[in-house]
Amino acid sequence: MKKLTVAGIGAGNYEGLTVGAARALGEADVIVGYTVYCDLMKPYFPDKIWISTPMMKEIERCRLALETAEEGKNTVMICSGDAGIYGMASPVLELAPEYGVEVAVVPGVTAASSGAALLGSPLTADFAVVSLSDLLTPWEVIEKRLEAAAAGDFAAVLYNPASKKRADCLRRACGIFLKHRSPETVCGVARCIGRDGEETKLLTLAELEEYAADMFTTVFIGSSSTKLVDGRMVTPRGYRHEHA
Amino acid sequence: MKKLTVAGIGAGNYEGLTVGAARALGEADVIVGYTVYCDLMKPYFPDKIWISTPMMKEIERCRLALETAEEGKNTVMICSGDAGIYGMASPVLELAPEYGVEVAVVPGVTAASSGAALLGSPLTADFAVVSLSDLLTPWEVIEKRLEAAAAGDFAAVLYNPASKKRADCLRRACGIFLKHRSPETVCGVARCIGRDGEETKLLTLAELEEYAADMFTTVFIGSSSTKLVDGRMVTPRGYRHEHA
Repeated sequence: MKKLTVAGIGAGNYEGLTVGAARALGEADVIVGYTVYCDLMKPYFPDKIWISTPMMKEIERCRLALETAEEGKNTVMICSGDAGIYGMASPVLELAPEYGVEVAVVPGVTAASSGAALLGSPLTADFAVVSLSDLLTPWEVIEKRLEAAAAGDFAAVLYNPASKKRADCLRRACGIFLKHRSPETVCGVARCIGRDGEETKLLTLAELEEYAADMFTTVFIGSSSTKLVDGRMVTPRGYRHEHA
Repeated sequence: MKKLTVAGIGAGNYEGLTVGAARALGEADVIVGYTVYCDLMKPYFPDKIWISTPMMKEIERCRLALETAEEGKNTVMICSGDAGIYGMASPVLELAPEYGVEVAVVPGVTAASSGAALLGSPLTADFAVVSLSDLLTPWEVIEKRLEAAAAGDFAAVLYNPASKKRADCLRRACGIFLKHRSPETVCGVARCIGRDGEETKLLTLAELEEYAADMFTTVFIGSSSTKLVDGRMVTPRGYRHEHA
């Protein structure tokens, strides 16, 4: 049966690829992806056929990848971060039966993990991941999830915290957390993870409410037990004292 | 300044390592970890000094790693999955100031991502990660988080769904989700991800309540929009119709 591999490439640098994803890309005839991610990976796999499509053309991109695989070419579709988390594995799996193509998913390091590593260890214990993009999900659903994550004292990771059309969504999200958590709650942001201009910033929840995030930002909101340790954002492993 | 690297190794096979983690291990003088993870990685890095400690000796293990780094040896501490998510980055960061050792965290692919890839794409949209282990967190806190995740219609990943002492915690967790979700909710489990005996199983929430999980199992509970597509567990990217 013809096969399409959907692979997460991590943050976008070579170091962030898994060995398995690097092998899949190395063995591919054709690599399909969003223009920006293709440009990040091309230098490492220059001898491939690259097919890139712009943002917002996701379904078209999935169909292109499936058609290429259907033609018998060894095809890999790349996603930033993990292939599953806000990635293309889902639409590819939904469309695949139309093409008679088998789908293999190769996981990758999502921004929750790579951003957390830069900040310290904010996600040591239970956490929730919420996208603030209302392109595919109504804002009321997003708000309900933020409310639940805040009420449950989850550490939270916010993906897509800004766009031109949704300038105030991070402010609104922080407002929800401030109903349940102290304004001094330890928060952090990571920008351009693994790419040129990579930077992090630690701030309080009150400061985060005023922060101007952009589409390259991943936001981390601490739980009630998250603290600053020597300039790092650290959530302890549990509530019980464990130091030996 | 002396440096200790805390690296996530992913599921435990070579393919699941990131290129960055493989490089860190390749450059290390000493590798410190839990016995099981050391045994998984030793074949790929046979020429290293390995220091392994049993489970439950985590703080001792962190101190050993920090002492080794303090002696000027290039030291890497390994964690399964990601270094931050239920990993050792947090206690190492907390203890490091006592030793004057700088800590670098290298992220890895956590079981939420690697298990999801085997099942399909259950975590496409917002999700919550909860550990059912009450060793470090009181069960009331865990229950509150499960309640919040269920109420917020998050897809959920449950780590540590069983142990000898806590035989019924998965049943109790499912009971909480069943208050908010249909017994037909699509769920899945992944066992021994990336290791010998790797297996997955799709089941309903009602069936999951009766499932005998063990300590090698990661559990996935679908959101209200998760569905079965050709034998895979798939959560669509959003609530809006996007097929082109």
